Amino acid sequence: MLPLQQFQDFIREQALFNKDHRILLAVSGGKDSVLMLHLFKAIGVTFGVAHCNFNLRGAEAQRDENFVKMLSSSLNLPFYVTHFETKKYAEEHKISTQMAARSLRYAWFEEIRANHGYHYIALAQHQNDAVETVLINLTRGTGISGLHGILPKRDKLIRPLLFLNRSEIEVLINDNQLDFVEDSSNASLDYTRNKIRHTVVPALAEINPRLEKTFTENISRFAEVEMFLNQEVEKLSIRLIEHRADGHYIALKEIEQLNPQKLLFFELLKSYKFTEFVVAEILMNLNGQSGKRFLSETHEAIIDRNALVIVAKDPTIVHYQTLHPNTEQVEFLGEVVSLSFSETIKFEVSPAKAYVDNDLLIFPLILRTWQNGDRFIPLGMRNYKKVSDFFIDEKVSLHQKSRIPVLVNGNGEIIWLAGMRQDNRYKLTATTKKVAIFEVKIK
Amino acid sequence: MLPLQQFQDFIREQALFNKDHRILLAVSGGKDSVLMLHLFKAIGVTFGVAHCNFNLRGAEAQRDENFVKMLSSSLNLPFYVTHFETKKYAEEHKISTQMAARSLRYAWFEEIRANHGYHYIALAQHQNDAVETVLINLTRGTGISGLHGILPKRDKLIRPLLFLNRSEIEVLINDNQLDFVEDSSNASLDYTRNKIRHTVVPALAEINPRLEKTFTENISRFAEVEMFLNQEVEKLSIRLIEHRADGHYIALKEIEQLNPQKLLFFELLKSYKFTEFVVAEILMNLNGQSGKRFLSETHEAIIDRNALVIVAKDPTIVHYQTLHPNTEQVEFLGEVVSLSFSETIKFEVSPAKAYVDNDLLIFPLILRTWQNGDRFIPLGMRNYKKVSDFFIDEKVSLHQKSRIPVLVNGNGEIIWLAGMRQDNRYKLTATTKKVAIFEVKIK
Repeated sequence: MLPLQQFQDFIREQALFNKDHRILLAVSGGKDSVLMLHLFKAIGVTFGVAHCNFNLRGAEAQRDENFVKMLSSSLNLPFYVTHFETKKYAEEHKISTQMAARSLRYAWFEEIRANHGYHYIALAQHQNDAVETVLINLTRGTGISGLHGILPKRDKLIRPLLFLNRSEIEVLINDNQLDFVEDSSNASLDYTRNKIRHTVVPALAEINPRLEKTFTENISRFAEVEMFLNQEVEKLSIRLIEHRADGHYIALKEIEQLNPQKLLFFELLKSYKFTEFVVAEILMNLNGQSGKRFLSETHEAIIDRNALVIVAKDPTIVHYQTLHPNTEQVEFLGEVVSLSFSETIKFEVSPAKAYVDNDLLIFPLILRTWQNGDRFIPLGMRNYKKVSDFFIDEKVSLHQKSRIPVLVNGNGEIIWLAGMRQDNRYKLTATTKKVAIFEVKIK
Repeated sequence: MLPLQQFQDFIREQALFNKDHRILLAVSGGKDSVLMLHLFKAIGVTFGVAHCNFNLRGAEAQRDENFVKMLSSSLNLPFYVTHFETKKYAEEHKISTQMAARSLRYAWFEEIRANHGYHYIALAQHQNDAVETVLINLTRGTGISGLHGILPKRDKLIRPLLFLNRSEIEVLINDNQLDFVEDSSNASLDYTRNKIRHTVVPALAEINPRLEKTFTENISRFAEVEMFLNQEVEKLSIRLIEHRADGHYIALKEIEQLNPQKLLFFELLKSYKFTEFVVAEILMNLNGQSGKRFLSETHEAIIDRNALVIVAKDPTIVHYQTLHPNTEQVEFLGEVVSLSFSETIKFEVSPAKAYVDNDLLIFPLILRTWQNGDRFIPLGMRNYKKVSDFFIDEKVSLHQKSRIPVLVNGNGEIIWLAGMRQDNRYKLTATTKKVAIFEVKIK
């Protein structure tokens, strides 16, 4: 027997959809999505089935595709399928196979949904997926927004299986003798999720046997707190941010009165993409000299006499890339900057490489083009030099100047003018324990 | 070398205390508290040392006491010591040894602090303790307030070691060759903390090697969100709760407009100790009949025509006990009420016992004394009867009346007047699957 009452209660409580809506189901053929398909069939909603073949598992992927196709046709359901060159896409975009699969999948689902008149895309994620996501976010670092886990509804995506946990799904699959394919993509789960699923969650479940239900309750409490915070920040933003032709203005005295200041100021600036570190920097400089500038991926903030002024950066002029500790390489204006680490303390003298004391790095690092006011201490020197003066000394042309990647630490200090000179503060010393090696190559 | 600069920065950033304050250090003699003691000594603050001997580990406990005494005397520090009969106290209060140790310890520290002119009590908890506390709270179920972990400062308690993690403390103990005693109480850690410390945290640390620092940052973000929520709820409370001589009034139409309603209403009622379940019950009944009553441990809420009215229960008259599904027995005014379950559907007729359909129970149940307005449907009858009228019919004296345990369901309905009559709504029927058996005995 299928838990139709619970399923319908959940759909109603979470306002997922109503009987007039047409739903597109993402079906891999594994237990979760197969159960979801049978639940939809049983409650008599109009729906179609979408299946992605990522071409990652050869014959097995073809078997999965055939299974979902047969299942759909036996139930007279519209069936949509696509084949991705996932590996190739991942290589071209320099992202992991998993990230590639994820972004290809969501883009295609949305395309099918919009072109074939479906209202929502239903994903078969369940309570254990939500628990894992919360634990992963906590482990990697998060604010309140990382605690809602996977939401039952977000934009066009709905997750109607969030009223069940993994073992409940297994029991239902067995009891109802539903056919499915063993989804071997689980075997290729990334390291982090694997560790959480197979070590952390079982240990927590020994403490609390109804762990998934408890997390579902936690998540719903956190989601309400987040909703309240967003709603209050929205009011604050309307009251404090004045949008003028030349930028967004926030009076400095209003910023000073925010309480709790760090949280509210960060949330106010969220849409301008300033990092937590830069937000703290701005706060420390509120009473400092006028004219100080701070950068985000998309915007620039300037401390004016009485206000902080935020302006969008001209994307055609300033280029910007973020480097995380696990970034292997990034493209930047036709060049490739790579990052690697070494515990052997040695270096070679080359403008194409920078050997940096790893302990001094504050991630994320930023790779950007030169800006007015940039200064650094060239390797071998003791005092600051303006980057513009350095370029003049080195006879760099105006055109070249705007293409040289500048590597900037999380604290705003310049680490390296890529291909030219690194900063003296970041060189290796007798106490260096680990070396970060940056290298630039023409692509 | 001790990290004095970091220590002092942390004390200043967290506003833990200033140089005029006298601090009482809780010192077990283990690594953490020994390091804390040496840090305090090095920065030249006035402080004393307090040590608890819980008499749980025989000769070893005496060795620890001697060690801390010698250390204090060698550094000319005031030394306070006490011996607890922890096991006996735990038995008398029917709590775990660990709960007993905890409550004895805090009460005694506070006594020494107040009587000897200390401003704060310093506890040597570090970042790993905070990580563990967050994970334990999440696993057991929590709202935002369970996410700040262990705070650096709360009332008279300060935790100046929260800038360090466990392995940093070990390195400092070794590098500075500090003597300590191996705190064997760690070996008797409760099951939950052990599991978190030895299985969960190491697995998470494989994903993120700087886990403790990441959690410290998470915690500080969550603490700001909580602070913001508390501050906004405080404003809301001033605006919405009218304190009159006969109770606290909240207009029903204001409750209806709260958004997000469940969160804000729960937070508004927090100081009156209503559970999340009862808060949800009140919300579902807002438009229902006037006169409906809801109970907390300390208060009673009544839906009046236009307002919810909250009144304190008279603690000298009303007694109150909570029963969970795993409660085997509770004491109540010299009697013992026990709870057991049976899958065999049978019962005996006895006023000392109630046989109740388990499916109807909403835990936690409440055991309390009779209150004005109580009514129930006596077993065998069809209509409500006032409990006061029932007592008159049964010739119960005024004195007896105030000692009869009344068992109340999570929805507020009376299940049983213990020793007298159970409610007809809760009797066994043909569809009963499991029986909950309540029994009352003179102790």
